[in-house]
Formats: sequence, structure tokens, C-alpha cells
Amino acid sequence: MLSSDSKMLSARAELLDCYLSVRNDTDDICRPLAIEDHAVQPNAEVSPPKWHLGHTTWFFEELILVRFMPDYQRWNEQYRLLFNSYYKSAGQHWIQSERGNLSRPRVDEVLAYRAYVDHHMTLLLQSDIDEPEMEEVLEIGMHHEQQHQELLYMDIKFILGVNPMQVTYDDSFLPEAKGLFVKGVMSELPKTALNEANWETFEEGIYQLGYGGEHFAYDNESPRHNTYLYPFSIAKHTVSNGEYLAFINDEGYNTARYWLSMGWDWLVESHIKHPLYWQQEDGQWYEFTLHGRHVLDLNAPVTHISYFEADAFASWKGCRLPTEQEFEVYLQQNPSEQGLVTELHHPNNTSEDVGQVWCWTRSQYTAYPGFKPYKGMLEEYNGKFMCNQFVLKGGCIATPVGHYRHSYRNFYQPHQRWMFSGIRLSKDI
Amino acid sequence: MLSSDSKMLSARAELLDCYLSVRNDTDDICRPLAIEDHAVQPNAEVSPPKWHLGHTTWFFEELILVRFMPDYQRWNEQYRLLFNSYYKSAGQHWIQSERGNLSRPRVDEVLAYRAYVDHHMTLLLQSDIDEPEMEEVLEIGMHHEQQHQELLYMDIKFILGVNPMQVTYDDSFLPEAKGLFVKGVMSELPKTALNEANWETFEEGIYQLGYGGEHFAYDNESPRHNTYLYPFSIAKHTVSNGEYLAFINDEGYNTARYWLSMGWDWLVESHIKHPLYWQQEDGQWYEFTLHGRHVLDLNAPVTHISYFEADAFASWKGCRLPTEQEFEVYLQQNPSEQGLVTELHHPNNTSEDVGQVWCWTRSQYTAYPGFKPYKGMLEEYNGKFMCNQFVLKGGCIATPVGHYRHSYRNFYQPHQRWMFSGIRLSKDI
Amino acid sequence: MLSSDSKMLSARAELLDCYLSVRNDTDDICRPLAIEDHAVQPNAEVSPPKWHLGHTTWFFEELILVRFMPDYQRWNEQYRLLFNSYYKSAGQHWIQSERGNLSRPRVDEVLAYRAYVDHHMTLLLQSDIDEPEMEEVLEIGMHHEQQHQELLYMDIKFILGVNPMQVTYDDSFLPEAKGLFVKGVMSELPKTALNEANWETFEEGIYQLGYGGEHFAYDNESPRHNTYLYPFSIAKHTVSNGEYLAFINDEGYNTARYWLSMGWDWLVESHIKHPLYWQQEDGQWYEFTLHGRHVLDLNAPVTHISYFEADAFASWKGCRLPTEQEFEVYLQQNPSEQGLVTELHHPNNTSEDVGQVWCWTRSQYTAYPGFKPYKGMLEEYNGKFMCNQFVLKGGCIATPVGHYRHSYRNFYQPHQRWMFSGIRLSKDI
Amino acid sequence: MLSSDSKMLSARAELLDCYLSVRNDTDDICRPLAIEDHAVQPNAEVSPPKWHLGHTTWFFEELILVRFMPDYQRWNEQYRLLFNSYYKSAGQHWIQSERGNLSRPRVDEVLAYRAYVDHHMTLLLQSDIDEPEMEEVLEIGMHHEQQHQELLYMDIKFILGVNPMQVTYDDSFLPEAKGLFVKGVMSELPKTALNEANWETFEEGIYQLGYGGEHFAYDNESPRHNTYLYPFSIAKHTVSNGEYLAFINDEGYNTARYWLSMGWDWLVESHIKHPLYWQQEDGQWYEFTLHGRHVLDLNAPVTHISYFEADAFASWKGCRLPTEQEFEVYLQQNPSEQGLVTELHHPNNTSEDVGQVWCWTRSQYTAYPGFKPYKGMLEEYNGKFMCNQFVLKGGCIATPVGHYRHSYRNFYQPHQRWMFSGIRLSKDI
Repeated sequence: MLSSDSKMLSARAELLDCYLSVRNDTDDICRPLAIEDHAVQPNAEVSPPKWHLGHTTWFFEELILVRFMPDYQRWNEQYRLLFNSYYKSAGQHWIQSERGNLSRPRVDEVLAYRAYVDHHMTLLLQSDIDEPEMEEVLEIGMHHEQQHQELLYMDIKFILGVNPMQVTYDDSFLPEAKGLFVKGVMSELPKTALNEANWETFEEGIYQLGYGGEHFAYDNESPRHNTYLYPFSIAKHTVSNGEYLAFINDEGYNTARYWLSMGWDWLVESHIKHPLYWQQEDGQWYEFTLHGRHVLDLNAPVTHISYFEADAFASWKGCRLPTEQEFEVYLQQNPSEQGLVTELHHPNNTSEDVGQVWCWTRSQYTAYPGFKPYKGMLEEYNGKFMCNQFVLKGGCIATPVGHYRHSYRNFYQPHQRWMFSGIRLSKDI
Repeated sequence: MLSSDSKMLSARAELLDCYLSVRNDTDDICRPLAIEDHAVQPNAEVSPPKWHLGHTTWFFEELILVRFMPDYQRWNEQYRLLFNSYYKSAGQHWIQSERGNLSRPRVDEVLAYRAYVDHHMTLLLQSDIDEPEMEEVLEIGMHHEQQHQELLYMDIKFILGVNPMQVTYDDSFLPEAKGLFVKGVMSELPKTALNEANWETFEEGIYQLGYGGEHFAYDNESPRHNTYLYPFSIAKHTVSNGEYLAFINDEGYNTARYWLSMGWDWLVESHIKHPLYWQQEDGQWYEFTLHGRHVLDLNAPVTHISYFEADAFASWKGCRLPTEQEFEVYLQQNPSEQGLVTELHHPNNTSEDVGQVWCWTRSQYTAYPGFKPYKGMLEEYNGKFMCNQFVLKGGCIATPVGHYRHSYRNFYQPHQRWMFSGIRLSKDI
Repeated sequence: MLSSDSKMLSARAELLDCYLSVRNDTDDICRPLAIEDHAVQPNAEVSPPKWHLGHTTWFFEELILVRFMPDYQRWNEQYRLLFNSYYKSAGQHWIQSERGNLSRPRVDEVLAYRAYVDHHMTLLLQSDIDEPEMEEVLEIGMHHEQQHQELLYMDIKFILGVNPMQVTYDDSFLPEAKGLFVKGVMSELPKTALNEANWETFEEGIYQLGYGGEHFAYDNESPRHNTYLYPFSIAKHTVSNGEYLAFINDEGYNTARYWLSMGWDWLVESHIKHPLYWQQEDGQWYEFTLHGRHVLDLNAPVTHISYFEADAFASWKGCRLPTEQEFEVYLQQNPSEQGLVTELHHPNNTSEDVGQVWCWTRSQYTAYPGFKPYKGMLEEYNGKFMCNQFVLKGGCIATPVGHYRHSYRNFYQPHQRWMFSGIRLSKDI
Repeated sequence: MLSSDSKMLSARAELLDCYLSVRNDTDDICRPLAIEDHAVQPNAEVSPPKWHLGHTTWFFEELILVRFMPDYQRWNEQYRLLFNSYYKSAGQHWIQSERGNLSRPRVDEVLAYRAYVDHHMTLLLQSDIDEPEMEEVLEIGMHHEQQHQELLYMDIKFILGVNPMQVTYDDSFLPEAKGLFVKGVMSELPKTALNEANWETFEEGIYQLGYGGEHFAYDNESPRHNTYLYPFSIAKHTVSNGEYLAFINDEGYNTARYWLSMGWDWLVESHIKHPLYWQQEDGQWYEFTLHGRHVLDLNAPVTHISYFEADAFASWKGCRLPTEQEFEVYLQQNPSEQGLVTELHHPNNTSEDVGQVWCWTRSQYTAYPGFKPYKGMLEEYNGKFMCNQFVLKGGCIATPVGHYRHSYRNFYQPHQRWMFSGIRLSKDI
């Protein structure tokens, strides 16, 4: 029979494995990149990949090693400034839009920094230092790094996509399961139309939302709480490229009345005519993907669209976007879907498409009743962004497995579209 | 016994009276202005008063006379362009931020346009033309004009306030009841502190919200619907200048952690250090009002603050802003408050301050479940602004009497503060 | 025989007459305007006419009355801030681009200010106070006010021109001689073509430039100095609308190689396709003038064009713009032209067109060798603008008579075009 | 006796040597850089070093190989777009400010492109293909590449300088002669003061300017021509850091009257308080150099200042900047100086400092009388920038030897200061 000490040791060993595995996943994502790909920032909201590599490391250094490991020496004092994203309580931070101005530290220096921090994290987790808060922050840190893994896919796609050189991210590094990128898989999706049979309906009543489990969830997913919903339907499939193309062909981008006022201003000012990675050449539509440019797959989910576009499409269709509450109920109450979520990395097993693209909801991101932010520096993690952002639900093909949760609340500004964002329609009954 | 015809005639006569009275109120607000005051636009969101005079008139011309009066001739075809605010379905409109570039039409020409339209509206209402939609739009038009009456007070205050000449809006034209402006009245407010006795608490449960009456309400106030609330308290009084000053003196504007991320960026970029009309001179605080500049009244409600400032103040105080649902419940369930609202134009009768300032809620402006926008051109009235705006509740001293309603949903962007906006705190129990 | 005292008195009386006459001319220019026309600023570089009325008055108050008249009291201390244009040594000044934000002082208040200052200037000039510097500054002040008279025409034209209401400046107030505005006169201009007979040639050698006379000239026109010129020709007529239209029709605005690099960027960014006041409707070209919109007169000089456009036109034509030295020599050495300049306000007497439009030169505005700026506050009058401006020569139809001088150096930034600017071609021999 | 053929062959061999030597110098400059340093663009006017490597290569490919070598195949068709700087006649070009958005082509790919073009250039020059224009363009191309060598030093300094990591460009790669960077050498400069003995005077008269020799010069240096100058003095030494610091300490950056109007606006808006690479820490001034940060050397020439700063310093000193004509005369007529220029890369041999820093002149960049631009695509080389730029004369320590010429006309916009720019004072006599 194991003593409680050895149980703890075994739990710690598992934690360390988990930590090293998450860290390794990040390195894997960057491995196919050229050094030059790590350094550029073609847009203020896109970060250079080497910044992600450094920032996720800074998180563990600043929140764990500095606080819990006696005599820990920072790798480089300048990194406090350079790899702090926006935590005012952690001192000054480099301006986000100027991350791409910095050629140094070099990629190899950042990787050395990662190794140094990983080494010390290993020592710490193998030691008998045991602070409850340490494990709590470690768990957040691992989820934080996973969020940046998805951001890396987004940013890499943008960096390669703006380049007219037609660069392809190395296929061999794309997990096979990440079907979104695999043109072959997508084209096997059943041809669907938006008819009655494809709507799922929910009754009026009180529903429970928010995270109620015993595993990890962010502060903004709590507390679990009641909400009152009215009868609604939600589409069983996300909107496809083909359906979206019909909107374009019906003058959707030239018809003001489908659009929010701010959306129309955005569209006119930015000369928006189609989703982010679409290109038209000689009448044929193409889409840039991490596998290179392909003829647009009309059966694949439309992706990389802004809230403005999602909302305008829904207006054109005579529907609306779901609220985040409706979407969460949909995720919860549909057992086959729930199974699907678990199996998400084997999308070939199912004809449904939950988890392929983040779906915009019409809910602006705000605090749940009774919301309590993290304490300390992490107070800045979620709450201070509750303004002018919309919630997206469901996860996408670039989302790490551990990040799929019914209660997960992703959020972006309504004009942003470099994430893997799509549409699931809803309507009142 | 009256025939139904004569009943209608009498109802129509009443409607005409009402119409003419609303129209006259608008003229009254502008009467103390110099001609020059009518023409300038010191800020993109502030409109020249003569534009308000024209736009409210265009509304009746375009939505009623053109549609329902046979052979009606527009006063001037150019006014369709110049006085359309943003209705895409009504053709082109002049760019909002360039309204102040137009010296013509002159004020006297706009007044002649008003007289022409009023004359034809009178003829129409005295005729036997009877379309149900006509009366519906007329009612909206009158409420629309009342909204612009409040905007006129806001814009006039801004126009006079940016001017270093220390201009005073003519006192005799300020209705006596508009106590906010009357320094004497304000200083008689009881000195209040934020203690337990001053909180009103509400229990968990299902509440009904939205307009359910038989009179006028905008489309965005419907339908009446259930919402599930958790126990909360709401302060019985709005935050005073004195309380807000304590926030300033405690380095509130220099402490990032009280602020939303966007709020902090706004504050830094715009060099914001205090509410809009406050000025400090030799250590003494002053406030610009429509009666000129006065020593800051510490007992008056703080006003002209942004959502960012309201939210930061609440954080500093360890409280939060109420949701719009909580605020509406507060307005509904407090009978003395309800009476107060009715009596609002006699604020001396009460020690409370509902209706003095619009109070920011933490709710971003979105559609009620089952929301149905107006049909036709008026579809653009409310729905297309449901993005990046926060709801304010309760009304202010510049709000026309007919506009106080528990269900009324005012909305502004989080950085805006030229409206009469203030703070009422809330907290979870 | 007059005593020297009475001579002085008579000279002073003349000076006062001259002063009052200049002041009255300014009032005359504004007389046809509506009050509203005085207040707006549709562009950062255009000033509200009431600002011109105030600023020219401030000049006399601040530089003469305050300094030379004992016990003079300023009309309003705030006007020091509001009507200072840019003189840093005269204290703070209101931001130029925000002049149109100020509804106050009202037009009648500004006129009262003018009357007050004129009254005190009269008293001063009738007194026995006699300071040499006073008369010197007075002379500059009168020329300064005449510069603003031309600016008033420019700004009024712009204010009326941006307005879609098709406003016409009152014809009766346009001096008959101002032929540019008189469509009839212009169309009688001889049809000209750009052939040898229409070039005037000059030989290589040393020429004298700059003001050498005994009357008034600005500091930047001195000293008179030698310059070495190479043989050149200069066109006897300015480029006509018809010739310029040929440039447009030959894809001039779509062909990068005719344009300066900055010019092309300006054109693309500002969507420039033709001169400022030109409009095309159903294939017909129109031009907005102070007399309203007219069919484009192909024989009238092209006007309201930028340096970029002038330079591109010259490139297209295989010619170049003259240097300011060449242009001044042309003005000097052509006796018939010289006569013309004197008679400029009777343009019907001649077939030539000097003085109709300011002509762009390829010379960037810089100091003459040995240039000495004014002393004191007026040091800021000219020298500090010697950067990124091009010189224009010759005067325009809106230029007051006293402002035509061979040595006069007008200057504007290369993208500006709301002044009456045109083209006279030149070439090397 | 050599046949004319073998003479040509020998001349061609020399040309090839020269070509390869220039190309190799460029590679040498980039050799100490990390790959990441090649890719970033911290400012719109700074280009990523790998872009310079590609652009200079594109020049030879597009202007020589494509035109003169039969069957030449471009290395990559996309490079036509990416490495064209601004030549509209060479097709589309990538936007300058977005060069840093491109991670591809990689540095190794650009180097392969260089090798490919060098290989074909070698073949071409070893062939019997002989077109007079080919050699002419080749010569321009080599000088063009040398201009980019100086730009590389400027851009590398900026890229390393904005980085808080305190990066040092590898010393061993800085040619020893490049004294500016060598703190030791600079501090041996004699202490100088601005007294009579240090001025050199020139008499009134006609001087000859412009290139008149038989070697290479750009189109904008011709033709040789007369100019009339008035007596002037020019300082024998450039302004030192110590002298400039006195200007700062005398409130130079806070006193509007020293500054051009645009200069003051620039200073206020950009919060400029000192030269570009100066930093103050605990009262001590430091300067960032390619050798890292050093205590400011008070005897070294002030460098990296804008025209605005140079002009303001001269005003404060009661002097002025020289015209470009005066500066060229100074360079011509001072035999010891002339020698110095030849010996420039041995600055230890002399106590003078011509060629250390480019000196601002008060002359705005314009065409010489009789200027004829290059033909064809190279027409865009110089002439289209003759607007809003000021001429700098004399060369700097980063200028390749072959680029020092009395007639050389460098030019920058008045706010730019990332080049090695300094001040030499002048005055009228």
C-alpha cells in the first residue's frame, strides 16, 4: 500500500509528464517553420511565433519559478519586458504591435530559454516543495500554453498566407486527424441543405450553464448557474463554403441592410468582399490553407469570417446567430454530439461537424452571475477583456484536445477573422 | 353620443396637438442659441443643432408626408441627402462627421422647412386620410424627436463647453424643474455615504422584463420576457461627485488594475484624468454646466463619465455595475421610486435621485429573446446598433417626460461621455 | 509752405485713410455671407471667415495698440488666444484645425471688436504719438490684411463649394474687374495653341532679382541680388482648361511616370481625378465658381490645381515648370506685361493673362542670399515656413491690387490647391 | 601591342572584377547578422537586410540579364514583384512599409538568388555580347548597390538600436578605417571651439558646380553649370556632440522660435528631445553605436539628426546652414580637404572631419539647370524625388569609397534622421 507521500510523488510525476508533453507540443508546431517565419508580424494582432515560444515560457518563469523555487535566477532580465503580454501587475510590457520589430532574442536563444525553464520546472516538480497554489497556477499555465498552440496555428497561417510566395506549412507535421486541412476528407462530407430535418429544437425553460465538473476550467466559465431560455432551433450543421458563396453571389457584400452599422463601415473601409483566405482568379474561387492553396471546397465549413459577416449571413438567411447560452445547451443536451466532442480527433467517424470551427454567438462577452476572477496577477487573465468582444463556442480543428469543453468561452472582437471561425444558425420558434 | 367618426376626429385632434407640442419643444431648446451655435460640430459624434432641427423634420417628411399625403412635394430635394442620418434604405446620406462642414441651409431656411412640414402635417392630420401605419409611424416620429431633444441638450453643452469663452446657455429657457443644472437645488441633497442602509436587496428568481404595457415603447424593449436573476443589492443613490473625487485622489486614473484593457488604452491615449466637464484650477475643482462654470458640487451625482470610468470606479469600490436586468427590476419593484419617476420633474419633492443621470449597466446591448425589429426603413432604428454598446437605464434630467420608462434601453459606446451618464453600484450577495 | 509737422500730419491722415480703406475692403468681402458661412471650417487649412475678421484685427491690437497706445485695454483677453494664428512669441494660440469648433465669439461680436480696434487705431493715428516702428508695423499689418482678403476668397469658395446646395456668392459684390469669375469675359479670350510663336525666350546671363524699390515688400523678397540663368523659354499664356482636359483625356491621372513620387502617392490615396472644382456629369464637365456652377470654359486658365498636377502636366507636355527666378525675369523684362500688371484690374484691355492665376514654379521656397527676417514677433512671419513649400508667382484675380509685385513670393505645399493656382510652362533652349 | 579586342577583353575582365568586388562587399556587411536580423522592419523607411540583398540583385537581373542575355530565365517570377522598390515602369511592386511582413524568401534563398545572378553576370561579361547601354547600366547598378551598402549600415543600426537587448554588430566586420564607430579614435579629435580661426571664407562671384569629370556621376549631378554666390563663411569642423549638448541644455528643444514651423510640430507630436540614438540615464548621456552603447563622446560629430534639428541648432547659434552650392564650393576649393576626401578611409591622418557625417544643407533638392534624367526605367531613379527633400553633402563614414564626390547630392526628408547626418555651420559675411 502506497503512502500518501508516494501517491503525491506519483501525482507529481504525472504532472511533470503532462507539463513536458504540452511544452513539446508547442515546439512541434514551430518545427516546420523557417527561422524567418518565427520573426515577422504582418498584422498588429498576429504575433511572431518566437514570441509565443518565449511568452509561454515567461509565464512559468514569472508565475512559478520566481515565486516558488528558492534562489531561482531569471534567464535574462530583459525577457520580463519582452515576453510579458499585457500583465500590468508584472511590470512593463513591450507594445503588442511592435513585437515584430525585434530580431532578438534569436530563435535559438528562445529555445535555450525554454530548455532552461523546463529544466528548472523539472527540478521543482521533482523536489518536495509543495504549495497548493503552485499546482493550481501550473495547471493554468499548461492550459495557457495550449491556447497559444491554437494561436500559433492561426498566426502561422496568417504569416504564410499574406506572402505571395505560396508557402505551404509542412504537411507531415499536421496531425492526420486535423481533417480541416485535409481536402480529401472534407469533400466526403455529406451534401447538406438547410431544411427542417436539419434543425434541432429546444424547449422553453430553465437551463444550467457554466462549468460544474471537477477538472480544469477557466474562471470565466464559473459559476454554474441557471438561465431562462425561450424555445429555439439550432442548425445541426455549420454553414458551408457553398452556402456562404450563395450569399456573396446574391450581392450580400453590397447590401447594407443585412449588416450591423459598424459592420458595414468596416466592410466599406477595409474593402472586404469575401472571407479572409478566399481568392478569386478567372472566375474560380480558391482558399489558402496550411496545405497551400486549393480550389474552394464547397462542402467544407466556411471559416475565417468576422462576426460582422456571420451576422450578415444570418440576416440574409432570415435566421439569427444563437446566443452563447443556446449554443452551450445544444452542446450539452445532444448525447451524440457530446460523444463526438470526445472523439473529435477522429472526425472521420462521424458525419457531424462540431469542433471543426469556432461558431460565433450573438452574445457579447460578459461576466457570469457571481463571477470571481483569479487572484493576483492572473486577475488580468479574462475579466479585463469583457468589453466589445463576442463569444464563440465549440472549438476548432486547431484546438488542443484538452480544450474542448461545453462551457469553454472563446471571444474575439467583431471584425477579427484570422481565427478558425464559422457559423451555426439559430432561430426562434 | 359621439359617432365613431367624431371620436376619431377628436383622437386625431389630440394627436395633432401632441405633435405640435413636441415640435415646439424642440424649437424652444434652440431658441436661446446664437445662429453660430447652430452650425458647428466640435466632435464627430456631436451634431450641429440646425442639423437636429432638419433631421427630425426630414423624418416626418420622408416617412409620413411622402408616403401618405397625395401630391406632397418635398421642400427641397437636397434635404433628402443632408438630413438623412444613416438610413441606407432611404438613399444616400451625408457623412455624419462632416455635418459641421455645411453652412447651408441657413438656420432660417431650416426653420422654414420645419414650418412647411408642420403645415402639411397639420393638413394631413385634419384630413380624412386614415392609414393605421401612419399613426404608428407618427408616434415613433414624436418619440424620435424627443430623443433628439435630449441629444440637443448634450450637443449644446458640448458646443458651449469646448469654447474657452465661458458661454452660458440662457437660464430662463431651462425648465425650472431641471434641477441638475440648478446648483442651489443640488446642494440640498442629503449627505449620503455608501453603507448597508443604503442598499436595496433582491432575491433569486425569475423576473419579468421588457415592456408589457399598452402605450408606446420602442421595438428593442419587447417582448416582455422572463429572466433568471441571482440575489443582488443595488445602491439607493447614485455615486456623487465627492465619492468620485475620492477615486481620483486615490490614484484611480493611474492604476491599471481597476480598468478594462480597452479602458486603460483609451485613458492613456486620450490623456483622460477626470470626468468630461471637470476642470481643476489652483487646486479647486470646477464643473462646466449649462449655467456656466461652478465650483464642483460634491453632493451632486457624478455625470458625463464613460463606461470605462464607471466600471473602474466600481472595481476600486469593490463592487460592480448592475446588469440591465437588475436595474430594470430595481426600477419596477420599488414603488416609491416608481412614483418618483412620474414626478420626476419635481425633484424637490424627494430625496432620491432616480432620473437625474443615466446609469451605466454592465450589459452589452443585444436583442431580447424574440426581438422583432420594425418593418421597412425603421428596421434600421435600433437593431443594427447591437454591437459594442452598453445599456444605460433610468433617464436623466434632460430626458423629456414621456421618455421615462422602466423598460427604456439607452445605449452608448464605452468611451462616450457627452451624455448625462453616471453610476449606480451593485453587488452580489 | 508746409511745416514738416503738417507734412507729417498729412502723411498720417493718408495712412489712416489707407488703413480704413483696407479694413473696409475686408468687411465688403464678407458682407454677402450668411452668418452661418462665417463659422464653419470644412477643411483644416480653410479658416472660418469670422476667424479672418478677428485675426486681422488682433494683429493691429497686439502689434500696435498694445505696444504704442498708452493705457490701451484689450477688447477681450480671450481673443489673444483665439485670434493668434501661430505666433509662438505672442503666447498660446488655438489649434488651427479647430477654429471651426468655436461658435463664439459671434459674428456681431467680432464686428464690434473690429470697430473697437478701428476706433482706437484712428485715435492713435490722429495723436502725436510717433514711433518709426509703429508705421512700419502698420504697413505690414495692412498688407497682412490684404493677404487675408485673398484667403477669404479662397476659403469662401471652398466653404460654398463643398456644399451640395449649389450656393452662389452674391455677384453684386464681386468687383466687375475680377474677370476670372465672369464667364462672359473669359470666353472671349483668344484661342491659343502651344506653338513657337507663343514662347518668349531669355538669354544666358546674370539677372537681378528681389525687391529693389522704395515701397513696401515683405522681408522674404529681399535683398535684391544676382542670379545666373541659362537660356530658357517661357510660355506667353497660361495653360487653359482645354489643354488640361487633353491631359486628363490622355490618361494623365492614370500614368505614374508623369508624376513625382509623392504626387502619385497623393493622387492614389486621395482619389484625385481632376482639378479641385471640376465635376463631370453625363459626360459634360462643369466648374464651380463663386458665381455658381458653369459649363467648363475651355479657354479660361486652368486653376485650383496642386503642384503635383502642374508638374505632371508639364512632364506630359515634354516641358517643365519655370524656376521662380525665370518667372520673375519674365515679369520684369516684358514691358507690355509690366504695364499689364499695373492695369490688372482692367483685364479686358489686354489679351494676355498675367495675374489671372498664381503660377507654380519648380522652386522650393527658401531664403534669398542675405535674407534678414523681421525683428520681434514678426520674425515668425515668413522664415519659419521655408520648408516643403513651392513658390508661386504673378498674382491672381483675387489678389488685391497692392499685392502685385514682380518680386512677390507666394508659397504653398505641393498638394494644396484651394488657392487660385495655375500653370505657365517653360523649357530649356 | 594589344589588339582593340584584347583591350576590350581586359576592360571587361576589370569590370567583372569590380562587379564581383562590389557584390562581395554587400555580403560582407550582412555576414555578422543573425538570420532574424535580416527579416524585420521596425520602421516603414527601414528595409529588412534580406530585402536589400534581393533588391540589388533584382536590379542586375531586370536591367541587364533580362535585356541583354539571350534566353535568360528569371530565378523566380515572384521576385519581380517583391524586389522592385518603386519602379512603376517595371510592373507592380510590393508596398515599401510591408517588406517586413514577408518571412519568405528565406535568407538562404536570397543568397542563392544572388549567386545565380552573379553566375549569369559573369557569363555575360565573359561573352562577346557588347552593347554600349549594357556597360552604362552596369556601372549605375554597381553604384546603386553601393548606395544600398550605406543603407544597410543605417538599417542595421536602426534594427539593433530599437532592440532593448543591447545588441552589438560584430566589430571584426567593421573596417578599421570606419573611425566613426571607434570610440578611441574619436576622442583624440582636437577640442575645437567655434571661433573666427575656424571659419573659411569665400568671395562673391560665379562658381562652377556639378560634375564635370570623366568618371561616373548620377544624372542629378549634371550638367556642370555656373552659379552666383555671395560672400560666405563655412565652419572648418562639423558640430560636435558637446556643442549640440549645449543647445539641449539651453532649452533648445523647448524654445519654439529656433524651429521651423513644421519642425516644431514634428518635435511636439513625436516627443523628440535629443538626437536619435542618444539616451540619458541617471544624468549621464549615452549613444548607441554599431559597437554597442557608449558614454557620449563630446568631441565626436553630432550625428543622426533631422534637418529640423540642424536648422534649429544653427538658429540658436546665430548662424545658418550652408546652401548646397556653398558646400560644394567648399569641398572643391580647399585642396587639403580635397586630399582628405581621397584619403578618407584613413581619417587618422588628419584632424579634419570631412566625410564623417553627411551635412544638411538648406537647399531643397531640385533639378540643376539643364538636368536630363536617365532614359527608360532609370528615369525614375532621381528626378521623381525632387520634392520636399533637402540636400546633404560630403559623405559619411559608412559611405563606400567610390561614392565620395564633391558633386554628390544625397537627399532626405527633413524629419528623417536614421542616416549618418550632421551639421556644418555657415554664415553671411
